[in-house]
Amino acid sequence: MKKDDQNVQPLRLDGQTLVDQLQILASVGSDPRGGRTRLAASKEEGEGRDLLVEWMKELDLEVKVDSVGNIFGLLHGEEGGAGGSPLVLGSHIDTVISAGPYDGCFGVLSALAVARAFRTAGRTPSRPLVVAAFTNEEGVRFQPDMLGSLCFAGGISPEEALAVTDSHGVSLEESLKEIGYNGPLTSGFFAPGEYLELHVEQGPILDREGLSIGVVEGVQGISWWRVAFRGKANHAGTTPTALRSDAGYGAARTIVFLRELALSSGTTLGTVGTLSLEPGAVNIIPSKAVFTADIRDPSEERLAEADDKLKAFAEELASAEGLEVTLERLARFSPVVFSQSLCALVEETARELGLSSRRMTSGAGHDAQMMARICPTAMIFVPSRGGISHSPDEHTDRADLLAGAEVLLRTAEKLLAKE
Amino acid sequence: MKKDDQNVQPLRLDGQTLVDQLQILASVGSDPRGGRTRLAASKEEGEGRDLLVEWMKELDLEVKVDSVGNIFGLLHGEEGGAGGSPLVLGSHIDTVISAGPYDGCFGVLSALAVARAFRTAGRTPSRPLVVAAFTNEEGVRFQPDMLGSLCFAGGISPEEALAVTDSHGVSLEESLKEIGYNGPLTSGFFAPGEYLELHVEQGPILDREGLSIGVVEGVQGISWWRVAFRGKANHAGTTPTALRSDAGYGAARTIVFLRELALSSGTTLGTVGTLSLEPGAVNIIPSKAVFTADIRDPSEERLAEADDKLKAFAEELASAEGLEVTLERLARFSPVVFSQSLCALVEETARELGLSSRRMTSGAGHDAQMMARICPTAMIFVPSRGGISHSPDEHTDRADLLAGAEVLLRTAEKLLAKE
Repeated sequence: MKKDDQNVQPLRLDGQTLVDQLQILASVGSDPRGGRTRLAASKEEGEGRDLLVEWMKELDLEVKVDSVGNIFGLLHGEEGGAGGSPLVLGSHIDTVISAGPYDGCFGVLSALAVARAFRTAGRTPSRPLVVAAFTNEEGVRFQPDMLGSLCFAGGISPEEALAVTDSHGVSLEESLKEIGYNGPLTSGFFAPGEYLELHVEQGPILDREGLSIGVVEGVQGISWWRVAFRGKANHAGTTPTALRSDAGYGAARTIVFLRELALSSGTTLGTVGTLSLEPGAVNIIPSKAVFTADIRDPSEERLAEADDKLKAFAEELASAEGLEVTLERLARFSPVVFSQSLCALVEETARELGLSSRRMTSGAGHDAQMMARICPTAMIFVPSRGGISHSPDEHTDRADLLAGAEVLLRTAEKLLAKE
Repeated sequence: MKKDDQNVQPLRLDGQTLVDQLQILASVGSDPRGGRTRLAASKEEGEGRDLLVEWMKELDLEVKVDSVGNIFGLLHGEEGGAGGSPLVLGSHIDTVISAGPYDGCFGVLSALAVARAFRTAGRTPSRPLVVAAFTNEEGVRFQPDMLGSLCFAGGISPEEALAVTDSHGVSLEESLKEIGYNGPLTSGFFAPGEYLELHVEQGPILDREGLSIGVVEGVQGISWWRVAFRGKANHAGTTPTALRSDAGYGAARTIVFLRELALSSGTTLGTVGTLSLEPGAVNIIPSKAVFTADIRDPSEERLAEADDKLKAFAEELASAEGLEVTLERLARFSPVVFSQSLCALVEETARELGLSSRRMTSGAGHDAQMMARICPTAMIFVPSRGGISHSPDEHTDRADLLAGAEVLLRTAEKLLAKE
């Protein structure tokens, strides 16, 4: 043991305070459906921000807010410590409508628990530790989602981000001013050394496999399409099957194809969540069917292949069925690959703690995918019961929450150890 | 030749007057979309009725209106002529929204042309000839459709029929009073000897096969279902394919099955005209899918078989996919079989006139299927260009119209010949 380590206290996770804070934050913006609704930069989310800032100040963190409302709680590193780049831990505290208690908040408050562990132990990290809460991750009120982290990572200018309006025409800038979170700093004012985000899985894999920790290697790529088949409206009773141009059949057959594609690929996911038929009468063959396709894959190559296959199938089907088809791209995000060395560190830490884990890909979008543009990044998942997410029924057992926070703490400890 | 046949003039179809009257009636209720809208018992349909009654009176027909608004133009038979049961020829003059010129009107005005032929030739039939226009065949304003003929055939009481209301709460009785067609006679006040209805096919078969005349042997049976699959709403990006309970996939797979069922049967038709997904977001797996299935078959046995197969398929699929399914019956009509001897007479008449013909089943419902409950009945179809129906684009060539009217006239002539 080196001389200057003699007075070092061990870092301890204060699980009770973490769980208490989760519960307190979960009560802000509570709604009649048993959930909580804190849309980005709303009055309710402002109350959540105030609470977070208060808790940061209790730990003597230096609170900085940038112009798009991202909140950073800075725990200074050693004077002259090796490397000045801060380790950033965080997530978001805005929610969807009637959300569960953990999505986003768990990552922010666990990051705060890491800062608390340093303060309680009286330890100063070798370089700065930053607790981050990014603006408008959910994208329910303002689009695009992950707007705060996107801006911090330089993917959109602060001016553009602030000009975005909600469905009532209110801009993000006005909304942030209203709640007092239009900060003075330019988004991206510091360069992170690494970014780590702890999050509930929002999917069923860990829960189903009975595992504690997901080591998230990246985020799936996403491809959204609007597909429209156009055929001929005709009488259901008088038009022989062979003479039909049934747009609804075109849609149905394509939905079945997407399922076949997902099953044969093994990594591709395909979802049709919206569909409408025109004219929409029991006894009229649909002349028009419009539906969306949500395709995801962790591999850019396989995602592009799935896009091509969908297009080819729809066009071939249209030609065979006397239909016209158009495919309009609604969104396309390439897969994000996280830092392999950070993933290995998280995995090793979980193993040291005796926690079961597996490598996985995030199906949902996260601030981490934006931060991955500017620094080594990884995520840690804990189980979501039944995979339920964006619902008051979202649940993670206390033991799983604390195991995840412990992995975050120990991984951060290693990263912040003197070099 | 018998003595009293010496002064008999031959019956001649006045094609020009028929075509002119079709055009005049088609201009009543004309709408901006290039069609005409004469919903049952509306002001516009009242104007059409006035025109028809005027034309009946020009031919010295005795006009009778029953309490549900059915109009009958009676051409008396010979005093003491053999058999008192009238031959009824007719159809309806109400329309769907933005209809074509021929649906219904063609049958009524051709029947009037038959009466005209008798008048012009100065001939009196051996028994009465009745030109009929039934109330609310289309069923757009009042449900059920074919209400006037249903009531005439005793399938619903006049009281019940008159109490039916439209979507604004206005009853058929009020509407008929408004236009002056609440007649004094009880529906079903006479017993028809036979019923013949000439109609445009509303389907593509005759047009596609280049034939002039359809000898209609019956009307398909109809089975309407509302099918609802219920699954679990889950995140499109985080839920592995094998763990999904995707109600939308259940619907799509069933629509594809209905197509397969139709193709393998050869006589069954299956149509899904309405479908809705919940919650209806691009990235959420549908928790609920509700759609209608319209199944038709000329054979009661095969229709029942198709019902059973749909039910069995949906239940098996639901079980395999972790879904719940309910099938709710919306309507069920057994197939109607017309008089074989009347069909043979129509077929023979077409052949004598040198017109190509085929036996067929009506896919759509017609007043004839109600009249078939109370007397020998048949229908005669003429081609619909492209099978287009219930649209301003509905079209039948003049030559085909006149060929159909000629078959109606000659068949009626035979039926009304002295016995």
